[in-house]
Formats: sequence, C-alpha cells, structure tokens
Amino acid sequence: MVTFLSGGTGTPKLLSGAEAVFDRVETTVVGNTGDDVELGGHLVCPDVDTVLYLLGGVLDRETWWGIGDDAATTHEELRTLAEAAGIELGPRYLADERQTAGRDIADWRRFSAVGEFMHIGDRDRAVHLTRTSLLDEGRSLTEATRTLAEAFDLTADLLPMSDDPVATIVHTDEGSMHFQEFWVARGGEPGIESVEFRGGESAAATPEVRDALDDPVVVGPSNPVTSIGPFRELDGVPEALASTPVVAVSPFVEDEVFSGPADDLMVAEGYEPSTAGVAEAYPFADAFVLDSADGTDLDRPVVRTDTEMDDEDDAARVAEAVAEALEVAT
Amino acid sequence: MVTFLSGGTGTPKLLSGAEAVFDRVETTVVGNTGDDVELGGHLVCPDVDTVLYLLGGVLDRETWWGIGDDAATTHEELRTLAEAAGIELGPRYLADERQTAGRDIADWRRFSAVGEFMHIGDRDRAVHLTRTSLLDEGRSLTEATRTLAEAFDLTADLLPMSDDPVATIVHTDEGSMHFQEFWVARGGEPGIESVEFRGGESAAATPEVRDALDDPVVVGPSNPVTSIGPFRELDGVPEALASTPVVAVSPFVEDEVFSGPADDLMVAEGYEPSTAGVAEAYPFADAFVLDSADGTDLDRPVVRTDTEMDDEDDAARVAEAVAEALEVAT
Repeated sequence: MVTFLSGGTGTPKLLSGAEAVFDRVETTVVGNTGDDVELGGHLVCPDVDTVLYLLGGVLDRETWWGIGDDAATTHEELRTLAEAAGIELGPRYLADERQTAGRDIADWRRFSAVGEFMHIGDRDRAVHLTRTSLLDEGRSLTEATRTLAEAFDLTADLLPMSDDPVATIVHTDEGSMHFQEFWVARGGEPGIESVEFRGGESAAATPEVRDALDDPVVVGPSNPVTSIGPFRELDGVPEALASTPVVAVSPFVEDEVFSGPADDLMVAEGYEPSTAGVAEAYPFADAFVLDSADGTDLDRPVVRTDTEMDDEDDAARVAEAVAEALEVAT
Repeated sequence: MVTFLSGGTGTPKLLSGAEAVFDRVETTVVGNTGDDVELGGHLVCPDVDTVLYLLGGVLDRETWWGIGDDAATTHEELRTLAEAAGIELGPRYLADERQTAGRDIADWRRFSAVGEFMHIGDRDRAVHLTRTSLLDEGRSLTEATRTLAEAFDLTADLLPMSDDPVATIVHTDEGSMHFQEFWVARGGEPGIESVEFRGGESAAATPEVRDALDDPVVVGPSNPVTSIGPFRELDGVPEALASTPVVAVSPFVEDEVFSGPADDLMVAEGYEPSTAGVAEAYPFADAFVLDSADGTDLDRPVVRTDTEMDDEDDAARVAEAVAEALEVAT
C-alpha cells in the first residue's frame, strides 16, 4: 500500500502514469481541501475532483481540471444573466456573517454564484451538487467522496484530507483573499504577503487519512505551500509523516518551477523558491526525486530522472523513480 | 393597471395572448410560491419561472415549464451518478431537523439533489442559482425576482406572492408529501385527504403585492386549490381581494377541468369539482369568464367565450372576455 498526498496538477500528473508501478487497488490518494470553495451553495473541491476525474477516466487533460468535453451551459447563462442585470462579475464573497453560517465544512470561503467567477462545467456541476446534497443528507465529506468515487468506478481509495474546514487565504498587497480569488480571478498577480490556512488549528486528519499515513507516503510535485501546506496544519499529520517513509518529488528544477504559483508563495512563506527550499519545507521527507538536470545537493537520499511530465510515459518514468526512492526511504 | 394572480399553466396561457388587451407595462403578475422547493440547496420557483420565461420569450411552450431548447446535462449526470452509486432516485427529502435550518424562505420543502427527482434544464438551473445566490447576498425573493425579470427584459412587473415561506403539503392515503412529490414524482395518483399551506398562518403578502392588489385583479384559469389557495392564506390578501374588482376565469367547463389535478384537489377541500365549485371557492370574485359551453348558473355576472387556449389567438380571445368582465366587475 502507498499513499499519495495530492494538490491539483503535479501529483495528478504523476498519478496518470503511476499505475504500472503502484497498483491502484493498493493506492490511496489524499486530496488537499484548502482550495475548496462553496460557490452558489455548492462545495467545489478542485484538487479532490481532479484526482476523481483522472482516476475515473474523464479528466480534461488540457486543463487538468474539469471533465473532458463538458458543456458549460449553466455557467455561461450565469454570466449572461448577471451581465443582463448589470451585476459585477468578479468573485462575490458572501457577507462576513454568512461566511460561518451553514455547513461547517465551507466556512470562510463562501461565494455567491451570481456571475460565477469560476468556470464550472455542466457534468462537473452535477458532481458538486451530488457531493453537497450528500453532505446535506448527513454524510461526511469523506463518505461523500467515496460515494462519488464509487460512481466513477475508482479502484484507488480517494480521501479528502479532512472533514473539518481549512481555507487557504492569501494575504496580498491588494488585500486578503481566498486562494481561488488569488489564482483564478487574479491570475496570481497580487503581491503575496503571507498565507493563512484558516481553521487549520482546529482541523484534524480523518481516521481514514490517519490510517493511510501508516503506509509509505508520496508527496507528488505539487505546490509545497498551498497544495501540501494545508496537510501539515492538520492534527496528527506532522507526527504521522515523521514516522512513516516519505518520498517527495520536487516541483522545481533547481530554482525553476514547472507550473503554478509555487515560487512566489514559497518566498512569502520564507523558503527559497527552489528544490533546496522544498527540502527545507519537507523536513519529514526521507528521500527525494529530482530532475536529472537538478544538481541541488540535499542532505537526504536522491533519485534523479527527467521529471517533466507531458504524458503517461513521462509519469510512469517518474513513478519508477519514486518507487526506487521509496526503497531507499523505507 | 391590472394584476394577475398566477399558477403554473392556466394563467400563463392567458398571459401569452393578453398583451393586445392588457399592456404589459401596465400589468403586474403575482406568482404562487407554494409549489416552490429547495432542490440541492437552490430555490426553484416553478410558477414564477413559467411567467418569467413566458414574458422573457424563452418558455418551453410544449411543457409550459422550463426554457425552450434547454439542455439537461447536469440533470442527466445527477441521475447517472446516483444510479452508478446505487442510490435511490425518488424524491429525497432532507431530514426533519434540516427542513427548517437555512434560508427561511425554503422551509418545509427541502430536497437533496442526489438523483434529482425534478427535471431542471441547464439554463433553467442558472436562474435558480442566480436567485438563490441573490438571496444569499441578502436580497428578498421579491428583489431577486425583479433582478431576474430585468435580466430577461420583462416589461411587466413580476412578483412572488410573499417573501415568507408557504409550502403546499398534500396529505394523501400514501402519506404527507410536498406538492412537487405528489405531482411530479407520483403523477397526482395518491388519494388526497387534505391540503395544507404550511407557514401560511404567519406569511404575509409583500408591500409590493398589497399595492398591486389595489388594482383590478384577474384570477386566471389556474387550479383554485394549489395555485390560488396559497394566496388566500396570506395576511392582507382576503381583505384586498374583497375590496377590489376581481374577475376569475374558470378552469372548468362545467365539471370538466382543462388540465392538472384541480378536480381531486377541490373535492378534498370540500368544493364541487366544477365551475360552481370555483365560484364558491372565490367569494371575492365580482365576475367570471366561462366557456361558451358552460351553462353554469352563477350568482355573479358572467362573460362567455371559448376558453380553450391552444395558442396566442385563443388567449387573446379570453383576454378580451376578461376585459369585458372587468368592466362589469368595476
């Protein structure tokens, strides 16, 4: 058994070719939920859903989010209606007093769907609706996620990192905002001052995640701050990671990041935006997989391969290196 | 100025051809909200929306609900996901304690969207999402409805009958159920014992509706029990109807109903299922429009015409008769 900690792009890319090395029935994937939002009353879990769709064989491989060939009729109509009524389209947070009224799991990240600032496809929306209604029927996010995994015929076990709310808030020189506003609505442009995982101090890993962290852990090439950072806030996780073999794949080649906002976020959190910074951020990692061109000298065992992943063959190659590193780490 | 009280089919049909007789800028339509449900967290207002779509020029004229040529990708995916997860598709009420937790306006009629038992189109869904998010942003249902009316470029004023919750519950020999379960999920089959307008005792007509009821009122050929009945529960409405000229169009030709579940509902409520029963149910009506073939002898003035409405010309003919009856009633 092996457990992957996943954000929204790097780790799913690794998972896309990992099957030859890590049998899916022996694989658990735990998704970050700090990026989740409640949009028009529906809980959207971008990182969990990317894995759900990937392993369910329906992921849009162009964007690495959403369902391939999905329509967006409702989303487009939401934009049309708001424009026709003269309403501003930007992210529309619910009022402060509404941010903690309702399902606990969605605290501090509630947006109106008027003019819907995130692109939600029509089939994708059915997933959010089903998840939210399962919560309203009394199930936990873990149970709702497993029901969706069953519907998409997953053989791997897919888990949200917590059934408690954790909201990734980016404090910037243009104000404080949820990660999805920072990334989706503002393209990562505002200057980052600090990152807060709101709720983290009282959030715990679920029993299912605690069990999964008894197995060897793979931290894929996800953003160490906003994708993996939330995990480390959870009660029980730092200790669990410290006591199990952990392999991390660097999302950098020395100081070049493959994609996403990892570099600015790392600087804001006091880390060097590089493989060396990743190693500092991951004191629990027992071994690393680095790119062949990455000469960073680390204090822990390293396996090198070409870590650029454009297709499943690339991912399989990186997965092989991960398996090799796990042998060193164990 | 004239005010129409509307259910979901008969009165919208009349409105479809009423423009030649009643200028839309001089027309207010007040929609029944007893049939509304919260489905997957979204407030669906079937009667108000049929008028919204009709006057906005997008109504599906085959069904008289929903938007013409709308897709239903999300709805179909909701069904697919529930089936794939082995979940029952029927109406899924939220638990009793959840029925009054959340927006007051949706009390006693909250359903999970898992397997979505009502057909919601994709553009249609954007309307429900916008309405619900406007409520979450702090607007009243009246304000949200006016915003949607603006988006659909309505010239008539469209109002929900109340900003308070009223839920039409049908008590049957197969148990108590919301009107939408009775009608949509069970095709009106269960034997009706009584009809309850839950919340009616503490619901009031809005100031906007009270103002509109100062004008002459047209009660279209809607179901007197579940379409018009909820209005009469509202604080202020019976007095207002008693003191303004009211013309009612019978939804019956003697004892034959044009469509819908009016006859069984009337019997259950102690009325004869006929034009005579309608007249008894509408003591506030000052004149009636009856079908030419309807020989019912009423104690109030009557204008007769062919009241079957298959197209806008038919509707215009009935509207002419309504105008004539209003002159007698005033």
